[in-house]
Amino acid sequence: MIDIDQYLEEKRNIVNLALKKRLPQSGPPKILDAMNYSLEAGGKRLRPILTLAVADTLDCKSNSIIDIACALEFVHTYSLIHDDLPAMDNSNLRRGKPTCHRVYGDAVAVLAGDALLTHAFEILSRYGQKEGYAEKSVKIIAELSSASGVTGMIGGQILDLESEGKALTFDQVERLSVMKTGALLRAAVVCGAIASDAGSEQLKILGSYAGDIGTAFQITDDLLDLEGSREELGKPVGADQERYKPNYPSVLGPENARKKAVMLYEQAVISISTLDQPAELLIELAKKLIFRNK
Amino acid sequence: MIDIDQYLEEKRNIVNLALKKRLPQSGPPKILDAMNYSLEAGGKRLRPILTLAVADTLDCKSNSIIDIACALEFVHTYSLIHDDLPAMDNSNLRRGKPTCHRVYGDAVAVLAGDALLTHAFEILSRYGQKEGYAEKSVKIIAELSSASGVTGMIGGQILDLESEGKALTFDQVERLSVMKTGALLRAAVVCGAIASDAGSEQLKILGSYAGDIGTAFQITDDLLDLEGSREELGKPVGADQERYKPNYPSVLGPENARKKAVMLYEQAVISISTLDQPAELLIELAKKLIFRNK
Repeated sequence: MIDIDQYLEEKRNIVNLALKKRLPQSGPPKILDAMNYSLEAGGKRLRPILTLAVADTLDCKSNSIIDIACALEFVHTYSLIHDDLPAMDNSNLRRGKPTCHRVYGDAVAVLAGDALLTHAFEILSRYGQKEGYAEKSVKIIAELSSASGVTGMIGGQILDLESEGKALTFDQVERLSVMKTGALLRAAVVCGAIASDAGSEQLKILGSYAGDIGTAFQITDDLLDLEGSREELGKPVGADQERYKPNYPSVLGPENARKKAVMLYEQAVISISTLDQPAELLIELAKKLIFRNK
Repeated sequence: MIDIDQYLEEKRNIVNLALKKRLPQSGPPKILDAMNYSLEAGGKRLRPILTLAVADTLDCKSNSIIDIACALEFVHTYSLIHDDLPAMDNSNLRRGKPTCHRVYGDAVAVLAGDALLTHAFEILSRYGQKEGYAEKSVKIIAELSSASGVTGMIGGQILDLESEGKALTFDQVERLSVMKTGALLRAAVVCGAIASDAGSEQLKILGSYAGDIGTAFQITDDLLDLEGSREELGKPVGADQERYKPNYPSVLGPENARKKAVMLYEQAVISISTLDQPAELLIELAKKLIFRNK
């Protein structure tokens, strides 16, 4: 039986150390500070932990898997910095601390985001320069760039900005969520699988698992925004309602949204159980992602 | 004898067609429009043409070199969009047309820049998935990401923002210029060389050529900002003076700056002439970059 809380804490510590080591060591101090500030602001490190958990499940022996995990978190952190900008969501708080642009100004925040995104690809290219890793690396870069681009995260953010104050259908909310949040979570799983030399059948199973937990994760996020407390979340709650942003609870109703999350969790468990490897870790992780209160 | 004007026009047409073909074909229309708008605004396409000219010089037979050229221009265009933002240089005109954020708003402009940067790496990863290209691809991605990151272009933009209204020494102006402009020009040359299977001696010679013409190019830019006309440049002139931004003419005096550009050109010609291949094309190209009036 896996102690998932212990697993999460262990991996979070490993990821935090690795992120610090992988930040650029030279360059103008102000930009390095801003990058470090946003990375250090904490967060659950879900994406890198997903990558590591997939590698553990597939019994990946390479230490370099941590490079992939870090690249995922760099991309996630860049997206938070840019989403928080006054031109976008205009958020003052993130993970309980003032947002990057509130501390360093808008110009530095734009550039710190740009730098984290750029650095993610630099890390992956260094990974790819290790003997025998080039082919995996280009596949991982293809996966990550496509998940982060206009058909993935960036496209989702555009839809999100456009959705403010509009009534969306369930399909539109789903498309937005799959692009904005789901794509990068899926990339965390799939990149971990590619790095672990997964075959096409394994990739299919893990991709389907990732799709289900990505959506369920977003539903939980929306429900917490509706019902959670500011202290637990470290950011203002009710943000979606305040801006009239449509989300899962607003189109389905909170009760049906909650039911859908449970259903997706169960579906993810069924998919992942068809893996040849024991999938307890990924099941426990899915449970944690979906049935959380912050 | 090479007709360099004809060469430039031919390659510019090839690059323009290729860029259009390589833009993402799906995703929310607004972001695709904004990306296309900024790419189509024209420009000299110097970076992609440098890549192609290096490949021609090294007799590279691969058609895929155009992928590298396009990635360079995507990164360059993203940097212009972000540099023009109100939080940065707050420019209303670029290449004679309203800047991206003036047309699409700040949020879309930030995301269009992000998307062009992300897409550059996606293109390079697709290039790397062609049979036998993975190792070259990861080297090219390493080169491009490092040239665009905190020790390159982004770092240079931070120094540029910090320099406003300050007196800089010659060394500081040089560091800023090498990072902000030189690094990406150098990457255009070096990535073209890697894609053409250049050896380490060739890479060294081409890197040195690229360093010299990069600096000379920046000096010419500064002189044109001082002395050129708005009609020729398609953007307001005197922008540096207006913001009290130190640059080469301001630290060296215009006459000495001009002399330094000529000297760097001559140095680039000497370096490049040590290549085993005939270097007339790269010499003519350097001349065009440096002795231009717009």
